[in-house]
Amino acid sequence: MSTNTRGSFSDLLSRIHPLLLAPMAGSGGLQLALAVAQEGGLAALPAASVSGEQLEKDVHSFRAATGGPLNLNYFAHRSPEHAEDAMAAWRERLAPYYRQFGLAETPAAAGGGRAPFDAASCALVEALRPEVVSFHFGLPDKALLDRVMATGALVISSATTVTEAQWLAQRGCHAIIAQGAEAGGHRASFLTDDMATQVGTMALVAQMVDAVDVPVIAAGGIGDARGIRAALALGASAVQLGTAFLRSPEVMTTSVHREALRNVRDDSTAITNVFTGRPARGIINRLMREVGPMTTLAPPFPLAASALAPLRAHTEPQGSGDFQPLWAGQAAALAREAPAAEIMRELIAGAFA
Amino acid sequence: MSTNTRGSFSDLLSRIHPLLLAPMAGSGGLQLALAVAQEGGLAALPAASVSGEQLEKDVHSFRAATGGPLNLNYFAHRSPEHAEDAMAAWRERLAPYYRQFGLAETPAAAGGGRAPFDAASCALVEALRPEVVSFHFGLPDKALLDRVMATGALVISSATTVTEAQWLAQRGCHAIIAQGAEAGGHRASFLTDDMATQVGTMALVAQMVDAVDVPVIAAGGIGDARGIRAALALGASAVQLGTAFLRSPEVMTTSVHREALRNVRDDSTAITNVFTGRPARGIINRLMREVGPMTTLAPPFPLAASALAPLRAHTEPQGSGDFQPLWAGQAAALAREAPAAEIMRELIAGAFA
Repeated sequence: MSTNTRGSFSDLLSRIHPLLLAPMAGSGGLQLALAVAQEGGLAALPAASVSGEQLEKDVHSFRAATGGPLNLNYFAHRSPEHAEDAMAAWRERLAPYYRQFGLAETPAAAGGGRAPFDAASCALVEALRPEVVSFHFGLPDKALLDRVMATGALVISSATTVTEAQWLAQRGCHAIIAQGAEAGGHRASFLTDDMATQVGTMALVAQMVDAVDVPVIAAGGIGDARGIRAALALGASAVQLGTAFLRSPEVMTTSVHREALRNVRDDSTAITNVFTGRPARGIINRLMREVGPMTTLAPPFPLAASALAPLRAHTEPQGSGDFQPLWAGQAAALAREAPAAEIMRELIAGAFA
Repeated sequence: MSTNTRGSFSDLLSRIHPLLLAPMAGSGGLQLALAVAQEGGLAALPAASVSGEQLEKDVHSFRAATGGPLNLNYFAHRSPEHAEDAMAAWRERLAPYYRQFGLAETPAAAGGGRAPFDAASCALVEALRPEVVSFHFGLPDKALLDRVMATGALVISSATTVTEAQWLAQRGCHAIIAQGAEAGGHRASFLTDDMATQVGTMALVAQMVDAVDVPVIAAGGIGDARGIRAALALGASAVQLGTAFLRSPEVMTTSVHREALRNVRDDSTAITNVFTGRPARGIINRLMREVGPMTTLAPPFPLAASALAPLRAHTEPQGSGDFQPLWAGQAAALAREAPAAEIMRELIAGAFA
């Protein structure tokens, strides 16, 4: 196991409850991070979906309010190039919806709102010195990763297979998130795009624990204290939960998303690529049913999103979640409508007491 | 919870280790059942793939060797009718393989080798009086089910969703198997055929425990004692394991299947309907890659199998598993090559000690 100036990931876990907040780009943020930190978990801020200025401000607010450790989460994808043809095909597929709602021509791709980790992000990490830096979709280039490591940050990333976990361990990750197929939001997959072979949490965690020498953090389908105890029984050193907090007032999500979560069942979600171009688990809605859930027409991540923005802007005010991602894991029905701190206390009492 | 003349399922569990052998039609059988019974688990014999005469003989042998309880497992599907067009399309899809191997025309459908529970099966249950009767693919008609219940047998069936579990509980099942998406072999699904919404064990078990009043038995992705402890932490009353025994000498499987199991990884399997017409999880091979893993061309269960028989008969002697099902769950890499009794003792010591 790699160590650094701040000690190992196990050292960190010995000072907090082994419960990580999933960063949840687009839903997570400062208030949720504060609640988790104040109850003794590992807080996270999603960096991929906010500006550097906003992130800096949030980190300073976090530091002012709590001495707890912080995880800054970045996406490690590459920005797509030469996607004009794919975008044209995608716009054509979506044209019937534009016609139905009487909307003007789809605007050109505007980026999709998910920035990859780059030199500017790295400079910010060097300035902000978070205790943990986590990546989704693999890792950044070695030069950037070396700079992150040099700050003393513990580096973690998610793996959906044992092969991905071994790849991450070889590159020095201090801990690895075993992201089971039940997990809400984007699949972390970076060595495979085969959704037919995605591994469930129950099977994945034990095999990953056997395969790597660093701590494994279980994620996916863990809805309450029972799931946490189950994950620890499988050999996980910690768990990461996101969906369990999605109905908390601290989460920045839409009323249609909250309404969908209120009515969700175990089999209400599927893995889809229609919203961003990468596979992600969400509650099934009209776009997923009619265009997906998986389609070869979606352009590369994150470009699919921009062409959907006008459809979402038109339908959401009418109380419809038909054209926006309703990210949720398969244990979403276990999520309670309660303040995040209350959920944290319940999880901790049930799992670690 | 329903009770019967032999007591509840919980009463049964109090007399044995809460560990059920998965019946595994085509692989399970008397020797495996005996090993599990002798170590204190709930043994099972697969009835769907053997003749009534063979089953009767096996039950008598079982009774002569052990006083342990026995589960007879049946399939509750309906035999397909008017499938001539579907069979013709399937034969056409497979024709290139017949040509490649220089095989004669595909023979007509010969049934597929999987018989549904019927009046003759019911009469045999009444004569043999197993302690437990389990069904896959739902339940038989009420008249037959009533006769099974009247024998005093505890009746269990598998559910892949909470909705299926509630359906089974309403019809009097004494316990329900929560079959997570990780499980090897046929999905039990009977109210849905949507493979995009199949629920992982970690998420499914807790939600099913909350939804029904009868004991829940966890299945899928449980590869060793860690998985058993995890399932119990989720609220399961017992577990059912199949893949964990597949490399035991007592299992009647092929050498190509054993060889595939020896090399399996966490992400080596997928859910496919190419072998029987119903979705089932197996190790990915040539037929799954080239025709599936899921295809709308597969005829209704169990008819897909008969058209594959000549391909399997030609390729298997050459050491190829390309045209036969290599059923396995996602924790297959945890299965050890060891006698079933030794595996049982290891599981029991690790999970219940």
